[in-house]
Amino acid sequence: MKVYVPYDDRNPKTRLSPLLDEDERADFVRACLDDVCDAIEATDADATPVVLSTLPIDTEYKNVVRDEPLTPAVSAVLEDTEVPVGVVVADLPLATSDALDRLFASDAGFAVVPGRGGGTNAFVTRNPNFRVNYHGTSVTDHIEIAREVGADIEVVDSFRLFVDADEPDDLVDVLLHGEGRAADFLSERFEVVENEENRVELRRR
Amino acid sequence: MKVYVPYDDRNPKTRLSPLLDEDERADFVRACLDDVCDAIEATDADATPVVLSTLPIDTEYKNVVRDEPLTPAVSAVLEDTEVPVGVVVADLPLATSDALDRLFASDAGFAVVPGRGGGTNAFVTRNPNFRVNYHGTSVTDHIEIAREVGADIEVVDSFRLFVDADEPDDLVDVLLHGEGRAADFLSERFEVVENEENRVELRRR
Repeated sequence: MKVYVPYDDRNPKTRLSPLLDEDERADFVRACLDDVCDAIEATDADATPVVLSTLPIDTEYKNVVRDEPLTPAVSAVLEDTEVPVGVVVADLPLATSDALDRLFASDAGFAVVPGRGGGTNAFVTRNPNFRVNYHGTSVTDHIEIAREVGADIEVVDSFRLFVDADEPDDLVDVLLHGEGRAADFLSERFEVVENEENRVELRRR
Repeated sequence: MKVYVPYDDRNPKTRLSPLLDEDERADFVRACLDDVCDAIEATDADATPVVLSTLPIDTEYKNVVRDEPLTPAVSAVLEDTEVPVGVVVADLPLATSDALDRLFASDAGFAVVPGRGGGTNAFVTRNPNFRVNYHGTSVTDHIEIAREVGADIEVVDSFRLFVDADEPDDLVDVLLHGEGRAADFLSERFEVVENEENRVELRRR
């Protein structure tokens, strides 16, 4: 099964700019990409990660280049690929092969893991007619699209695939629970502290 | 197995005050409590919810009253209860019996589900010597305490038990994925909208 990992490193993750400068953000998203691809490769399923990027990138994994926005790029590769086929976003720094195995093992026509705030962090479709429409609360749209093409639906319950890396608060969870390059990148630079209001945040070392 | 649900409704959830007034916050946390207790009762495990509150409350479930802060109250009931014993915080509006079944089915000495930002949202201990220390990043402490008393550890991977209801952003996920009273309470009052910056938030109906 091919599992596409969409990746765009042009000025990524601007919402993390209070914590990371532009070069750091680029290094961080690249660490996330490598973690996600490694986790896909290490699953029990016969899953092959394919990086879907807007520019060619230097990677040990397969790389398909489509200079298009996310939605047409993913829909185009879905059209070109035999089912089952998966799509896992690159910015999942807590992804593990165990978590992905639970997604890949689903026999539902459309198995999906929501992201925090309504995103679609990972899915596998066994229905060849499923297409995507990424936006803020895309997960409800994707479930509706899957229903319209006649797929039965499973929502896979994983915080490791639910936590993405959009906001500074997300990085607290990455530091606390991460095991890969992205967590190492953060732990070299930050520690988790509780502030006066008993709230948790990252502080530069 | 007894599963304690700590509950304190005195001026709860002040961080939700941008969205909910004080009466609404009280109604909302009560809806969460009822959802969590119902979900515990509906698991396949032989699990009995016990509300652990600072004042007596009107509930169909068992109620143990201890007028103490969270940490001594939970440690005291753990001391008085045969293992296995569970503790599930009341503010988990996405909790389902399926998610709790995965926690309750673990045969680890200490099985735990982290909360967003390092909290400890749910655990089951089969080791009689485990005690708690709740604070911001308590989950790492609890794992360390479990290790010290000789328990093997399993971190259960569930976004339904990871999402609590501390911040306005959490309520977006509750509205999108919730099925119980807490989600109904919110959907009567709010809808999910994408703002100009393509970010997702709740808006009063």
